[in-house]
Amino acid sequence: MNIWAKRAALAVVLAGGLGAVGASCTNKAEQLEEKHEQGALGASADLKALMAARGLSEADVEAALKTYTPTGKKDEYLIFASGGHSGQVFVIGVPSMRELKVIGVFTPEPWQGYGYGDESNKVIASGGQGTHSFGWGDVHHPSLSETKGDYDGQFLFVNDKANGRIAVIDLQDFMTKQIVVNPLVGSDHGGAFVTPDTDYVIEGSQYPTPLGRDYAPLSDFKEKYRGLVMFWKFDRKKGRIVPEQSWGIELPPYSQDLADAGKLVSDGWAFLNSFNTEMATGGTLQGKPPIESGASQNDMDYLHVIDWRKGEQLVAAGKATTLKGIRVLPLGVAAQEGVLTFIGESKSPHGCDVTPDGKEIIVSGKLDMHATVYDFAKIKDLIANKKFESKDAYGVPILAFKDTIRGQVELGLGPLHTQFDDKGNAYTSLFLESKVAKWSIKDLKLIEKLSVHYNIGHLLAAEGDTVSPDGKYVVAMNKMSIDRFASVGPLYPQNFQLIDITGDKMRLLYDMPIANGEPHYAQMIKADKLKPLKMYTPAGYNPYTGGHDPNAVEGGKERIVRKGDTVDVYMTAVRSHFVPDQIEVNEGDTVNLHITSVEQAEDQTHGFTIDMYNINLSLEPGKTENVTFKADMPGVYPFYCTEFCSALHLEMTGYLLVKPKNAK
Amino acid sequence: MNIWAKRAALAVVLAGGLGAVGASCTNKAEQLEEKHEQGALGASADLKALMAARGLSEADVEAALKTYTPTGKKDEYLIFASGGHSGQVFVIGVPSMRELKVIGVFTPEPWQGYGYGDESNKVIASGGQGTHSFGWGDVHHPSLSETKGDYDGQFLFVNDKANGRIAVIDLQDFMTKQIVVNPLVGSDHGGAFVTPDTDYVIEGSQYPTPLGRDYAPLSDFKEKYRGLVMFWKFDRKKGRIVPEQSWGIELPPYSQDLADAGKLVSDGWAFLNSFNTEMATGGTLQGKPPIESGASQNDMDYLHVIDWRKGEQLVAAGKATTLKGIRVLPLGVAAQEGVLTFIGESKSPHGCDVTPDGKEIIVSGKLDMHATVYDFAKIKDLIANKKFESKDAYGVPILAFKDTIRGQVELGLGPLHTQFDDKGNAYTSLFLESKVAKWSIKDLKLIEKLSVHYNIGHLLAAEGDTVSPDGKYVVAMNKMSIDRFASVGPLYPQNFQLIDITGDKMRLLYDMPIANGEPHYAQMIKADKLKPLKMYTPAGYNPYTGGHDPNAVEGGKERIVRKGDTVDVYMTAVRSHFVPDQIEVNEGDTVNLHITSVEQAEDQTHGFTIDMYNINLSLEPGKTENVTFKADMPGVYPFYCTEFCSALHLEMTGYLLVKPKNAK
Repeated sequence: MNIWAKRAALAVVLAGGLGAVGASCTNKAEQLEEKHEQGALGASADLKALMAARGLSEADVEAALKTYTPTGKKDEYLIFASGGHSGQVFVIGVPSMRELKVIGVFTPEPWQGYGYGDESNKVIASGGQGTHSFGWGDVHHPSLSETKGDYDGQFLFVNDKANGRIAVIDLQDFMTKQIVVNPLVGSDHGGAFVTPDTDYVIEGSQYPTPLGRDYAPLSDFKEKYRGLVMFWKFDRKKGRIVPEQSWGIELPPYSQDLADAGKLVSDGWAFLNSFNTEMATGGTLQGKPPIESGASQNDMDYLHVIDWRKGEQLVAAGKATTLKGIRVLPLGVAAQEGVLTFIGESKSPHGCDVTPDGKEIIVSGKLDMHATVYDFAKIKDLIANKKFESKDAYGVPILAFKDTIRGQVELGLGPLHTQFDDKGNAYTSLFLESKVAKWSIKDLKLIEKLSVHYNIGHLLAAEGDTVSPDGKYVVAMNKMSIDRFASVGPLYPQNFQLIDITGDKMRLLYDMPIANGEPHYAQMIKADKLKPLKMYTPAGYNPYTGGHDPNAVEGGKERIVRKGDTVDVYMTAVRSHFVPDQIEVNEGDTVNLHITSVEQAEDQTHGFTIDMYNINLSLEPGKTENVTFKADMPGVYPFYCTEFCSALHLEMTGYLLVKPKNAK
Repeated sequence: MNIWAKRAALAVVLAGGLGAVGASCTNKAEQLEEKHEQGALGASADLKALMAARGLSEADVEAALKTYTPTGKKDEYLIFASGGHSGQVFVIGVPSMRELKVIGVFTPEPWQGYGYGDESNKVIASGGQGTHSFGWGDVHHPSLSETKGDYDGQFLFVNDKANGRIAVIDLQDFMTKQIVVNPLVGSDHGGAFVTPDTDYVIEGSQYPTPLGRDYAPLSDFKEKYRGLVMFWKFDRKKGRIVPEQSWGIELPPYSQDLADAGKLVSDGWAFLNSFNTEMATGGTLQGKPPIESGASQNDMDYLHVIDWRKGEQLVAAGKATTLKGIRVLPLGVAAQEGVLTFIGESKSPHGCDVTPDGKEIIVSGKLDMHATVYDFAKIKDLIANKKFESKDAYGVPILAFKDTIRGQVELGLGPLHTQFDDKGNAYTSLFLESKVAKWSIKDLKLIEKLSVHYNIGHLLAAEGDTVSPDGKYVVAMNKMSIDRFASVGPLYPQNFQLIDITGDKMRLLYDMPIANGEPHYAQMIKADKLKPLKMYTPAGYNPYTGGHDPNAVEGGKERIVRKGDTVDVYMTAVRSHFVPDQIEVNEGDTVNLHITSVEQAEDQTHGFTIDMYNINLSLEPGKTENVTFKADMPGVYPFYCTEFCSALHLEMTGYLLVKPKNAK
C-alpha cells in the first residue's frame, strides 16, 4: 500500500466530518496529503505510529477514546466510593476515572481544614464511644439518598465498621455534617443502606457482642452475645439523623453481613444475610480451629427477612425496651410478631441485593458456585400464612428454602455481590476467579464472564442498585493489583476497573489505581443530579451550623475584643491580606479566632494557619470558621494563607505575638 | 464516499500491522468488511462514531493515545508531588496521570496505619515543636536524592512550611522514616533542596522571627528578627538526617523564598531569593498598608548567593554560635567572609532555578515580565575580587546587578518558576497569564506560549531540575480549575496538566484533578530508577527501626505473657486468622500488641483493628507492628482484619475481652 493510500486511510478516520470527504480514496489521499503539509492533520498522520510506539491494540484505542476526557469536558457520572480504613470517601468521575475529591469523614483532613476548627472538631468529637475518641474509621458502604427508590443527589451516608458509626455528608458542599454512634454494637457492616424514600438509614452489626458491649465471657456467647439491626430515622429538612426517633431489632449472635432495603413491591421490608450461624469463637492459641473453619461447618446460614414497617408499629406501640438510650425490639417479640423471619442461604454468603423491580433478592455464598434468586411474593405469602419449616435456637421462624426461591444460577468460584443494568441483566463479582459474571435474571442463564485484575470484591453499575439502573458502566473494585502498576512499595494500590456494558460483550476500558485506601462498596450517580454550591453567599456562612455565623464580620468591621484573659479576633480574609494582620496576646490567654472569607469569586479559596499552633483552616469563598486556642507558648508566630490565592499570596501573612508572663 | 472505502479507511488505520494490508484500497476494504462481519475489527468500525459521540477532535485522539495506559502496561515516569497542607506526598504515574500512592508524612494516614502504631507514632511525635505537637503539615517542595546532580531514586525529602520541619521518606518502601524540626525558625519555604550528592538538605526560612522564636515586639523587627538558611547533613547509609552535623547561616529579616543548589561548576554554592526586603509588617487593623503593598515598594529585592563550602569550613573552624542546639554562622561573619553575597533581583521574585550545566541561575519576579539569567562565572569572579557595589543595612556586600547577568528575556505576566528540557530550552510558568512560556536559554528568545487552566504556580519537567533533563513532558501545576471538572462543592480540585514537549509545538495532553491537597512543587523521575521492595523478607521486619523486630514471632511461637498488670501479646496474622484470636485482660492493664504478618506473598496485605480502641495497623507481607494501649474501657471488643485479604476475610476476627475491676 503506497503512502497516499495510507494517508487517506488515516485522514478519513480523523477528518472533521465525512461529508467533506471526496468520492475516491486516492483523490482524497492527495487532498489530505496537501492538507497535512499545511499541518492541518498533524494528529492523523501520527496515529498509526502512536499505536506502534505505545503498543496499543485496536481495543486499546477504543478504550482510550471511550474514557479520555479532554480539558473542559466534564464527566457524565460520579462515583462515591468508601475509603475503607482511610476513614474517608472518594469522589471519582466516570468515564475518565479521575479522583475529583477526597471527603474528610471519620479522619481529620487538613487541606479541607476538617478536624482543625471548632465546628469540624465537634463533628469528629461527637463520634466518640464510651471514654474513647477516634481519629479514623473503617468506611464500608456508601448510600446515596433516594426518592422513590432512585438517587436524588442530596445526601450520602456511610458506616464505620470499626466503631459502629454512621456519617451524614451533605452533597451541597460535599462536607460531613454529622457522625452518629451506635452505643450497642461492636463492628457494624450491613450499612449504610437507605429505605426508598430515605426515611431510614439501615445499620446492621457484624461481630456479636453483648448489646451495649458490657463484659461477658465467651463461654456465655450464646446466652449473652447478640446482633442488632438499627433503623436510623433521617430528617431530610434538617439533613440530620434523629437518634431519638430511631430504633433497632435484637438479633441472634450470628455475624450479620450485608443488608439491602426492599423497594416498590417489597418496600417496607429489609433483607440482611449472615455467616457464622455456628457461633464459632475460635481459640487458635489453645489449638482450637480458627473462626474461618468453625464458621464454615453448616451448609446453610440464614437470610434475615425483616418487616420493618411492622417493627416500626410495634416500637411505636411501646413493645421496645430502651438500652443506652436506644429503643430495641427484643428478639422474642420480633420473632413472635413476624418482624423477623429466616430463610436458609448458601454458607458464608456475602452479597444480598434486591432487584430493581423489588420482586427478588439475590444472594451469593462465597463458598458456593451459585447465585440464589429469592422470590419476595413467595416469602411474603409464606410469612402471612405462617408456613414455617422450623425455628432456630432463638425461636426465629424459618421458611423452607425450596419454597422461597425461583432458582439458582451457576456463576463460578467465589460469587460475592450483584448489580443490575437496564436490560434485565445482573452482574456478579467472582472473587476467587477474578471475573465479572453477566447473567440473565429472567432466564437464570450465565451470558459471559470477563477477567478482572485481581480478586474483585464489590462491583457497581451506573445507578445499578436503584429502581432504574442506567446500564452503560460497571466498575470492578479489585482488592489486588499485583502486576498492574509501577511499583510503589509493599503496600499496593487497589484497582478499580471500568467496564463498558453497552455492547453485546463486556469490554474492559480502564484501570484506576486507588492510592489512599481500600474501598469496599461504591455507588455511581448521574453527575447532573447533583447541584453543589459554588460558594457560600452571602459571605459569613457557617457550613456546619448551616446558617450565617454570628461571629462573621464584613470588611471594615474587623476588630479585636479582649475580656479578661479571653481575646476574640474578628478577622476577614481577601486577596491578599488578613485584617487584622497583627495579633498580640499574653501568655495564657484564650484566643477565639473568627475568620470570614469575604471573597465572592468561584474557586477563590484561602487558607489560614499559625506556625507552631497546630491551627489550619480552609476558607472557601464566603465561609466563616471559628477556632479557639490557648496562647500557652510565648514567642513570635507568623500566620499566613495556605492556599495559593494570587500573585501576592506569599505576602498574605501576619504575626501572632504571645507576650511571656515574665515580660516587662 | 461509499461504505467500502470508509471501512477501508478505518481498517487500515487500525490494522494490526500495515504489512498485512493489501495493495489496493478497495480490495482491502472488501477483506476488512468480511473480517468486520466476524467482529475482528469491532473497534475500528466504531472509531469515527466514537469521536463524534464523545466530541473528540483529532488533537484529542492524539492526546488520548499518548496518555492512555492499558491494563498491565506501566507508567514510564513517577511524579512526587507535595500535598500542600494535606501534609502528605502524592505519587503519580506519567503519562497516565494516575495517582499511585499517597504517602503519609506529617499527617496520620490510617490506611497505611501511619500514626496508629508505636513506631509510626514516634516518627510523628518527634516532629513536635516546643510544647506543641502537630497532626498535619504544609508540604511545599519535594526533593529526590541525587548522585552527581542526577536523581538516584533512593530518598525523598520534603519541608513543612507551617512548622519549620523536614521529613525523610525512604523510597524502598515509600514510608516516612524521620521528621526533623528546626527550633530556630517560624515558617520555612526554601526547602527541601539537596546538594548534588545529597550531602546536605537545604532549608530556608520564610517569614522572619527572632531566631528561636522568642518574643520580641514588631517595633524591634529590624534589630531582633532574622532569617536563616539551614544545611541539614544527610547520612545516606543510615538514611537519616544528622542534626548534630548540621548548621545554618543567620540572614537579614527579609522573607527568604525559594532556594536551589549549585551543580557542576557551581557545586558548593546555593542560591536563595527573597521578597519584602522593605521589612513591612503590615498593620491593617490600624489602617496601615497591608504587607502585600508594603513589600512591593522597592524595585529590587536580593538574590542571596551562598558559598556553603566556605560556610562549612568556618563552622568546622568554630566560627558558629550555638542556638537551641543548632550551630549558626552569624550574619556578620557570613557577610565578612564572603559566605553571603547579595545581588539585586526584580521585586517579589519567586522562582530561583540553576540551569542543568550549573553555569546560570534563572530568577523570575512575579511583578516583572522578565526572567533574568545570572552568570555564575561573573558572580564568582566579582566575589573573588571583592568587586562590590554596596552593602545592605546588615553589612552584606551587594554585587552590581548589570555586572552579574547575561541578560533578560521578556516572557509575560507573572513569571514564576523555570524548568529545563534536553534541547537547551527553558519552560517558565506565567501565573497571571495562565500560560507556560517556552524559551531558548542560548538566545534568550521566547519561542512559544501555551495556555493552561488556570493560574499555574510551579511547573515541572521530566528530571527537569537535574544535570540531565529528559525532555518529553512538562506538567503545569495549576492552582485553579474553575470550569474544568464536574462540580464537587465550593472547594475545587487543583489541576495538573500534562504537556507533550517532544514536538516543535507544546501540546496539552491531559487534565488531572488533584482531589486531596494543594501541591506546590513536584519532581518527575524515570520509574525504572526506583527499586522498591515488594514485601519484607524474612517476615518480622520493622520498617521504622530498619531491622528484624525483637518482638516478631514465627508461626507456632505465638504467646500471651503477663507480668503484673502488663500483658504482652505476640501475635501472627496469616490468611485467614490471627493467633491468638482471643485476648482477655483486666481493666487497667497495659497491653503491648506485637503483630507479625507471616505472609510472604506479594500484595497480600492484612490490617488489624480493635473496635472502640482506636487501634489500626497495616500489615504488609512480613511486617511487624507494635502497639501499646491501656485497657481502660471494660467490655467486649471484636478485632478483625481491615484489608480484604481472602474469601474468608470476614472470618479473620477475634475478641478482646476487658474484664471490669468489679467483676467476680
